[in-house]
Amino acid sequence: MEVAFMPSYLKVRAHVVDFVNKIQKLGKDDPRRIMHSFKVALAITLVSMVYYLRPLYKGIGDTGIWAIMTVVVVFEYTAGATLSKGMNRGLATLLAGVLGIGAKYLASLFGPKAEPIVLGCLVFLLVASATFSRFIPHIKRRYDYGVLIFILTFSLVAVSGYRVDKIIELAHQRLLTIILGCATCIIISICVCPVWAGADLHSLTVSNLEKLASFLEGFGDVFELPSEVDNTNRSAERDRSFLTAYQSVLNSKSTEESLANFAWWEPGHGKFPFGHPWKQYLKIGVLTRQCAYHIEALNGYLDVKYKASSEFQIRVQEPCTKISFEAGKALKELASSVNLFTYPSSSAKHIQTCKNAVEEVSTTLQASMVGQWDVLDTIPIITITSVLIDIVKCIETIFAAIEELSQQANAEVSLDKNKKQKQCHDGVVASHAVVTVIIHKSALELRDVEDHRG
Amino acid sequence: MEVAFMPSYLKVRAHVVDFVNKIQKLGKDDPRRIMHSFKVALAITLVSMVYYLRPLYKGIGDTGIWAIMTVVVVFEYTAGATLSKGMNRGLATLLAGVLGIGAKYLASLFGPKAEPIVLGCLVFLLVASATFSRFIPHIKRRYDYGVLIFILTFSLVAVSGYRVDKIIELAHQRLLTIILGCATCIIISICVCPVWAGADLHSLTVSNLEKLASFLEGFGDVFELPSEVDNTNRSAERDRSFLTAYQSVLNSKSTEESLANFAWWEPGHGKFPFGHPWKQYLKIGVLTRQCAYHIEALNGYLDVKYKASSEFQIRVQEPCTKISFEAGKALKELASSVNLFTYPSSSAKHIQTCKNAVEEVSTTLQASMVGQWDVLDTIPIITITSVLIDIVKCIETIFAAIEELSQQANAEVSLDKNKKQKQCHDGVVASHAVVTVIIHKSALELRDVEDHRG
Repeated sequence: MEVAFMPSYLKVRAHVVDFVNKIQKLGKDDPRRIMHSFKVALAITLVSMVYYLRPLYKGIGDTGIWAIMTVVVVFEYTAGATLSKGMNRGLATLLAGVLGIGAKYLASLFGPKAEPIVLGCLVFLLVASATFSRFIPHIKRRYDYGVLIFILTFSLVAVSGYRVDKIIELAHQRLLTIILGCATCIIISICVCPVWAGADLHSLTVSNLEKLASFLEGFGDVFELPSEVDNTNRSAERDRSFLTAYQSVLNSKSTEESLANFAWWEPGHGKFPFGHPWKQYLKIGVLTRQCAYHIEALNGYLDVKYKASSEFQIRVQEPCTKISFEAGKALKELASSVNLFTYPSSSAKHIQTCKNAVEEVSTTLQASMVGQWDVLDTIPIITITSVLIDIVKCIETIFAAIEELSQQANAEVSLDKNKKQKQCHDGVVASHAVVTVIIHKSALELRDVEDHRG
Repeated sequence: MEVAFMPSYLKVRAHVVDFVNKIQKLGKDDPRRIMHSFKVALAITLVSMVYYLRPLYKGIGDTGIWAIMTVVVVFEYTAGATLSKGMNRGLATLLAGVLGIGAKYLASLFGPKAEPIVLGCLVFLLVASATFSRFIPHIKRRYDYGVLIFILTFSLVAVSGYRVDKIIELAHQRLLTIILGCATCIIISICVCPVWAGADLHSLTVSNLEKLASFLEGFGDVFELPSEVDNTNRSAERDRSFLTAYQSVLNSKSTEESLANFAWWEPGHGKFPFGHPWKQYLKIGVLTRQCAYHIEALNGYLDVKYKASSEFQIRVQEPCTKISFEAGKALKELASSVNLFTYPSSSAKHIQTCKNAVEEVSTTLQASMVGQWDVLDTIPIITITSVLIDIVKCIETIFAAIEELSQQANAEVSLDKNKKQKQCHDGVVASHAVVTVIIHKSALELRDVEDHRG
């Protein structure tokens, strides 16, 4: 029965059931979300103890509300974001408090009549320049919240200073409660089932590489049996989700950047020491997206119904399928070597196989000087070949970036191991150079390789 | 003299000069940023008048700090964002205040001993479920800040209610000052040099289309004279910024989505009535990015040094250059018709020319059944052709989306005009159908056209 034809009470029920299902799915997709909700509730309950327990209440007084406010505003999903906000809030409050008291004393030198005017001007100028500073990219990225709190606290201290005489005592109390709130957030966020932005960035990078790998392997499957159109179409429909997963990679930039930003604040955790090369993940992310753009181009040829295969097509198709499979395998190996911080030596082999296949294709194409087939029919396969070659180039740059990551991450590994890796690396570079020469020789100058390196 | 070899005082000076230049550039790039800073400072100065002027101070009292806090937190760059935050804050405070007082009375029924425990449990449950609700995509997009303020206010009212007897009076005062703060922000943000998120989204959409158009026209230029390699390279270097501008389109998704989100809150302004179809801009954005991915593929062929032209290449190159130019022109016309809310009739002509050129290419290719040239040499040109054909298809879908936008935006236009538009549209659809048949006939089944439509 469709929703449109239901009686209204059933409609309401259907909507409620639908809503409950969505909520359940949200929880199931990432159970850490449920945990996060309880963590926030726990932090607020702990901090509101200040009100319930008399001795504490007498000590801190009415400013206890600032502790609750701090918890609500500072507690974020990942530990890094909470730390970032907590540190920003604490330091900005301290700095703004000191400056605010300074501004108050400066203004009081001008006599009681001029004091509010001088204070007003000071607040106006400082707020305007601090607001403008939020447009500076570096500050926006890392200290945006701190500047906001700076503006807030400075205005409050400077303005309320005009009325409240015991301003220093008040500032002291407020700072104490804010530190209490921040500390509660940071401790709970780090100690109770922590959600690390760094670990999330790491697994996002791995899963993005795996999504591209799945596509390439899936494409190889579809491409392998073009004559059995019905069969292919059916399997393509079945695997559609599998083959469209890569699309989320295309728009992963903002998520990656914010995660890397929060990861910068995090202490060492699990496999990640403090000062882990998070920036390198962003580089890998850029190259992964570059590869995803090429895959987007390839995606258009997923449903192409090839003409009855000519001899040429059969000869080109085989190495192309191999390139697609091997490129997928190389990406999978790269993903696993990112995951385990190992040197990506096994993927080097797959990349080499890819390159051999590229060579094979170019030999085939070179031998096909005088074609006995319709050029129109060969367009899809030639385009696919050319896109696949671009993808192999992309994978090489990803390889180099992951190699760099593994070196940066394992800087403390013994010299001996490093030497071994270097030899392996030299081998790859040498074989790489050979293949590059081959490609150049075979006049496959589709794209300036140096451009990619630069 | 390089910075590394300078004496330290000169180094400091160089850094300061560099910093000042950067700040100046920020202001010059978008002078509205400077205006925004002064607007925030003005709002805070206005609100802090509450403290300076005695009569007002007596009325509202110490809670005046809430007005300052509201201004600092609510005042955002665009009017839509300010409205969104202001409305969220006002409504959430009201709702949470009422619920908080209700919770307090409910808890007081259990007697003085059980009261803090019941209140604590209530706060815990409500905070946990409200925090979880922030993961629901719809709430996250539009009411995230409201839920935050709800949690904050509910905790404050419920907890402070345990101590402060005159809770209703306090809540009333606090709500008043928050409304004062929100109103100040909203009025200043809308009346003093407003920055409209909607207008920004509109111009972003237009400029993204123009960037793609510039690339295609530039590509046509470079592609036209492949034999004069030196000349081409020089002009390519000169125009590099021009040809790489499209890259910002690739990652425009998050900006577009947040602008569309804020635009939803804005009242009618300038050319945009309330309820302007902002969602359609997001659709156009998705299609524009799709086109940008293809252009990214084309970008790889910008520096290809073509082999001495064979007859085949010359024959294919001419219509390809035409496709590139005409596609660029079509996009430019589409951009201007988005800008002016007009029906994109002139771009229909350019699209038609593109399609004729596509037909010409396919005829050429069909005639080249038996090739007398090296297949390897023709790979770049065949790939370029195939990508250009994909781009033409993308532009058609963008055309359809912009057509829909112009219809939605001009819903109030007279029926007569609509009819005229429909005829024109029918003409385009008919010619489109003819070309589609031609393309199908010529076996250029590079991609399932229906897939694009769906």
